[in-house]
Amino acid sequence: MNQARNGKISKEMDIVAKNEQVDVDFIKRGIAKGRIVIPKSNVRDFEKPIGIGEGLFVKINANIGSSKKVCDIQGELEKAQIAVKFGADTIMDLSTGITELDIKTIRDKILKEVKVPLGTVPIYQSALRALDKKGAIIHMDEDDLFNVIEEQAKEGVDFFTIHVGVTKHIVSYLKKHPRMMGITSRGGTFLAAWILENEQENPFNHKYDYLLEMAREHDFTISLGDGMRPGCIFDSTDYVQVHELLEISKLVKRAWQKDVQVIVEGPGHVPAHQIESNIKMQKSLCDGAPFYVLGPLVTDIAPGYDDIVSAIGGVIAGMAGVDYLCYVTPSEHLSLPTKEDVKRGVICSKIAAHAVNIARYGSRATQWDFKMDSARKNLNWEEMIKYSIDPDTSRKIHYRDGHSIDDDGTCSMCGEFCAIKILKKAIEKKK
Amino acid sequence: MNQARNGKISKEMDIVAKNEQVDVDFIKRGIAKGRIVIPKSNVRDFEKPIGIGEGLFVKINANIGSSKKVCDIQGELEKAQIAVKFGADTIMDLSTGITELDIKTIRDKILKEVKVPLGTVPIYQSALRALDKKGAIIHMDEDDLFNVIEEQAKEGVDFFTIHVGVTKHIVSYLKKHPRMMGITSRGGTFLAAWILENEQENPFNHKYDYLLEMAREHDFTISLGDGMRPGCIFDSTDYVQVHELLEISKLVKRAWQKDVQVIVEGPGHVPAHQIESNIKMQKSLCDGAPFYVLGPLVTDIAPGYDDIVSAIGGVIAGMAGVDYLCYVTPSEHLSLPTKEDVKRGVICSKIAAHAVNIARYGSRATQWDFKMDSARKNLNWEEMIKYSIDPDTSRKIHYRDGHSIDDDGTCSMCGEFCAIKILKKAIEKKK
Repeated sequence: MNQARNGKISKEMDIVAKNEQVDVDFIKRGIAKGRIVIPKSNVRDFEKPIGIGEGLFVKINANIGSSKKVCDIQGELEKAQIAVKFGADTIMDLSTGITELDIKTIRDKILKEVKVPLGTVPIYQSALRALDKKGAIIHMDEDDLFNVIEEQAKEGVDFFTIHVGVTKHIVSYLKKHPRMMGITSRGGTFLAAWILENEQENPFNHKYDYLLEMAREHDFTISLGDGMRPGCIFDSTDYVQVHELLEISKLVKRAWQKDVQVIVEGPGHVPAHQIESNIKMQKSLCDGAPFYVLGPLVTDIAPGYDDIVSAIGGVIAGMAGVDYLCYVTPSEHLSLPTKEDVKRGVICSKIAAHAVNIARYGSRATQWDFKMDSARKNLNWEEMIKYSIDPDTSRKIHYRDGHSIDDDGTCSMCGEFCAIKILKKAIEKKK
Repeated sequence: MNQARNGKISKEMDIVAKNEQVDVDFIKRGIAKGRIVIPKSNVRDFEKPIGIGEGLFVKINANIGSSKKVCDIQGELEKAQIAVKFGADTIMDLSTGITELDIKTIRDKILKEVKVPLGTVPIYQSALRALDKKGAIIHMDEDDLFNVIEEQAKEGVDFFTIHVGVTKHIVSYLKKHPRMMGITSRGGTFLAAWILENEQENPFNHKYDYLLEMAREHDFTISLGDGMRPGCIFDSTDYVQVHELLEISKLVKRAWQKDVQVIVEGPGHVPAHQIESNIKMQKSLCDGAPFYVLGPLVTDIAPGYDDIVSAIGGVIAGMAGVDYLCYVTPSEHLSLPTKEDVKRGVICSKIAAHAVNIARYGSRATQWDFKMDSARKNLNWEEMIKYSIDPDTSRKIHYRDGHSIDDDGTCSMCGEFCAIKILKKAIEKKK
């Protein structure tokens, strides 16, 4: 951000401009104003830095990570690789188990082998450390919180979700006026429990300037986490959610004063008719800071299919101006995702992001569809498969009824009643 | 419609009002004005007639049916049963093969064993008859077209998709000004090919009054098919699509003059930013006639995942006022769907319809979510599974990592880092 404000164009800005098909000055101005971020640690090097924000293609993030109940280090690395293969722009490693060494090992592997921006929620490691050394998460002290961030920043983590907006006021309000689902953000809950136990302000909020200095020094991006994101549709757009957003809007401006890149995180479970106003409220309050949403999930009744529920919300959010979608897998609300779930989650999110890009940017985004449609009108199945978002799946479905490439060119849906074929023949005949 | 206009309340209106939690007078007035239809043949009897239209829950349709390449009569019946099990409100049998006897057998079975409204596209049978007796679809004559409708109406088919709006003018325009994907509606293509070959007006359009008399006599609902529905995002909202809608808007009013219930069908492939205007244009031009869409599909790049692409479009369309969603399965654009595809397609569509109902009707639609959320906040997994849209899938995912019901109540996603559990404990402790 400092470079952009000084009129300097970095290598990263150039690459982003080229990939986005926009002028590099547009990128530079966007970064200077805080409306675009390029999350990239100065320790890391990867070929394809990405930009997130106003006027750019919508990006998607895939969460991976172990838990205490399922901890397979190699498996998590493979999930990250699958996610990138199917189009994830960034990875967040949300590992929470079993030990600090496990999650450090997973992170090391990803930093080395997966060449996209990596984010974490560092409080998970702080919590593990407190649990291990002091017997309970709520016994974390400020050092546990800040030291972990510095350690991870030095390793090269590109961006951190930090729940700076979870204040003592919000937590005490929530205690007096419970909502249906309480807090479902893990980082938000750790801090809320800490605030309740210690009767003090959130250390990240209290010492925000220190956090900003650290961010400036190590060149990491702060993703201001929404600890109060609604955990069910009934909690959506309520006092604590909006109050936290107000708090975050102040934190955004303080970050910009120190040339620190920030992203704002948002809901969560939101009924379809409330999504647009949520996005527009954030964009207005936060002066156009990049907005990153988890979902939104438009209904709570579909565990096993929340990848789909989230793709629906993601498109509505994207049409209203969201910049960055966090995927949701079919396992959400049920268990840790498998590799197959990660793949489905990424594909769903990719579809959502692409649908928004078409709506926002027209021909800057539709080349892919054009290739598919050109193949489709010629009934060229091999080309259709090639341009599918998941060629293997397309191939399997198309050929499962025993077609061969030497077939009459129709599929088993219509066979000789193929509309494309019949019309073509009728028009040819009359020429 | 005639009964409603004469102020009579039928048994069907009563049932629909009860299921929709609205006053029966609201239903009666809606039917009288044409804004609500209850598609039900006077030959058939089933327990749960459904209403489609303004102020009612969004309904979903599942298409089943054989093709010449895949014709499994028992299999198609099972698909219809699976669709109803997972929430399809209506079934359309789009069988096209292998022989007239096959498709009649499938229809008979469904009429007897599947107790929801059944629709067909009768021209498919007319085309099969022409192909069999005269060697080519385009040799159909008016008798082939109208006789099949009368035969199927007598059997008890509740509604028919008929492409009355495909006019000679539109077809000749399309011949002169080709669009990317031409026509992908099968019924639309048969009629367009017929018009090109015979250089005459579409018989359904030319003899529309005769069709309306037949509808009145046999009490079937006409679904005015959109033969020009865009087959790719580049053809969306173009001259032929909108011209056909204008034609359809006139046909709606002529039907209402004869007390005939009509539904209007719509696109198709539509980029996300064009959906709202498409729906509002239809609602305005057609004086609020129920609107039935296939998709809409917001991108063309995801064969294998078009159930999801369609759920996204369905919610945006529903928010703008659509009444009735036709499902799309993962096999769309690739092959005839399997039973598993039918299940996925229905679930996707059901999620979309439910998300819209929440947005439109609030607490009239959210009881289901409330039950799920009550179970979720108590970490009651058996209840969560019970209230899932697909309990078997939820159960499989939740328990796959070896949990038992005697577990600590958390899932393998977070384990001991469960936000719900930690916050609850922290609050209890401070009480």
